[in-house]
Amino acid sequence: MTKSVFVKNLQIGGGAPVSVQSMTDTLTSDFDATIARINQLYNAGCDLVRVSVPDIDSVNSLKKLVEFSPVPLIADIHYDYKLALKSIEAGVHKLRVNPGNLKKDGIKEVAKLASERGVPIRVGVNQGSQSQKLSPTELARLCVDTACLMEDAGTDKLVLAVKSSSVRETISAYRELSKLTDYPLHVGLTEAGTETLGITKSSIAIGSLLADGIGDTIRVSLTANPVREVEEGRKILRAVGLDNNFVEVIACPTCARTCIQVEKYAKEVENLTKNYRKPLKIAVMGCTVNGIGESKGADFGVCGGKDKSVIIMNGDIVKTIPNDEIMSELIKLVEKYDDK
Amino acid sequence: MTKSVFVKNLQIGGGAPVSVQSMTDTLTSDFDATIARINQLYNAGCDLVRVSVPDIDSVNSLKKLVEFSPVPLIADIHYDYKLALKSIEAGVHKLRVNPGNLKKDGIKEVAKLASERGVPIRVGVNQGSQSQKLSPTELARLCVDTACLMEDAGTDKLVLAVKSSSVRETISAYRELSKLTDYPLHVGLTEAGTETLGITKSSIAIGSLLADGIGDTIRVSLTANPVREVEEGRKILRAVGLDNNFVEVIACPTCARTCIQVEKYAKEVENLTKNYRKPLKIAVMGCTVNGIGESKGADFGVCGGKDKSVIIMNGDIVKTIPNDEIMSELIKLVEKYDDK
Repeated sequence: MTKSVFVKNLQIGGGAPVSVQSMTDTLTSDFDATIARINQLYNAGCDLVRVSVPDIDSVNSLKKLVEFSPVPLIADIHYDYKLALKSIEAGVHKLRVNPGNLKKDGIKEVAKLASERGVPIRVGVNQGSQSQKLSPTELARLCVDTACLMEDAGTDKLVLAVKSSSVRETISAYRELSKLTDYPLHVGLTEAGTETLGITKSSIAIGSLLADGIGDTIRVSLTANPVREVEEGRKILRAVGLDNNFVEVIACPTCARTCIQVEKYAKEVENLTKNYRKPLKIAVMGCTVNGIGESKGADFGVCGGKDKSVIIMNGDIVKTIPNDEIMSELIKLVEKYDDK
Repeated sequence: MTKSVFVKNLQIGGGAPVSVQSMTDTLTSDFDATIARINQLYNAGCDLVRVSVPDIDSVNSLKKLVEFSPVPLIADIHYDYKLALKSIEAGVHKLRVNPGNLKKDGIKEVAKLASERGVPIRVGVNQGSQSQKLSPTELARLCVDTACLMEDAGTDKLVLAVKSSSVRETISAYRELSKLTDYPLHVGLTEAGTETLGITKSSIAIGSLLADGIGDTIRVSLTANPVREVEEGRKILRAVGLDNNFVEVIACPTCARTCIQVEKYAKEVENLTKNYRKPLKIAVMGCTVNGIGESKGADFGVCGGKDKSVIIMNGDIVKTIPNDEIMSELIKLVEKYDDK
């Protein structure tokens, strides 16, 4: 098991649930736009949010963001270590530094202040920030060397990451890193190509590592609204069984017996409940022949009939409704469960 | 390296490119609907197509399908081994049998005829077809045992598969299977839940195995139009670097300098070229400040200006066009490359 690190009240590593991160795409200096984005990310299921801090205006905005954000905030620092020091003073909950573009002396100074203030640091090594191409093993070693530098400067509240734009390199680098360290790992793939392929690449790299027990916090990087990053991140956790707090819609594949628009209702229910954070199974079945039996595993569901359909709860018929009331009835049931 | 098996003229295993499979969702007995679907799948990039053969009408249709299909066909057999024998006689190029629902005597008889006619067989073990829950190791062993039974009956043109609806179980079962055998492996995850999560689960399981060099042919199973299965299958191959014959659209993340609708054009180009089967890089850049330099790696691209934009080929400006001609110019360039 990895060590645990607390970012404000959020535990990373040490057996804590894998957390989902994203990053704002607004100007951090624009408080209103940035806090709005942070709230959107939070509502989509984001556990902690990174904001870039490229200038002093961003630091000033950060002070207020830290106060109003519903989730812990991470300051993303490149080139200028003094912005890291100022971000710590502004009360940020975690820092991300890139050893590819910060000098050693700066890194040490940041580590010293972070240690005094109890602020954890992510050491985020990116293949793209290196002056020459490093192998996965070299990336992992550079990351661990930087962690040692930080330890020497007095801090051991660290999270490590080694990203590349290649699925295979990312998997290899993290496997290597997880052998070299017991610090918690932030897992992700750097952006490559279009959103279409980016989602598949991130799913494979992150999901493959998580399935092998590697990874404590994740970020899916996409050139898209960051809310999509959170949605995809949560999907990866669900796919490998690390997040059961969601609605699973079970739909029959439809056949000649199907009386209702199964796919339409299934998609509507899925969309309606996509921000729902409790485990719930809802069945949408096209007929009563197999539907009632097959929806047994569901908390509730509908089985279609010619003009009227039946509502099933825990395997029993509890109600018969006209087909044009199916969606409104399902909405009512979802809301009822949401109150529990 | 795995052994190689030929399905008509398509090599599976032995270092051949990983092939993408899908399955028709039409009634196989309906020749017109089924051949139309096979052609759609072929156009989407499907290398071989499976059709279910549940009755004698399907066998009769199969005879004609084999004659007209642009790709090799696989007959999917459950319960009745005689339909497998009849499918071989109908000229099918490969069989899929499920040891979970065929008796040993039937399997032997099928293996014998398949061997005489040179027809390869996939031994497809599914967790869902077992009377009790098997561990990944037990699934792999059941698969290898069935392969031995087939060898005893005289055939060694085999492809093996062990599917489950769990990502972790699927990965474990195939890792185990790849240690036990050098037959080529058909990799996939059985359908679980909605399309949304199904795609992520398949991407992780299949992609993770392929990244480790496990898998010779793949199928993404979805409750959706099977064309989607092929699209997702090709995306997985591309994500892990096993298929470079596609168009990669490189787009800038956009900023205050952006003069043109980068995301819109990038998506249009991507959609326009999604069935293109040659490696091609197209850049869509919002401005000329960084755009010209950053599109150097592309075969061609556009860099936006206020009213006019420039067309770049291999890093050089070759043409200036009004902004309302961007899309038509990109279409022309794609068509030109398509002729080569």
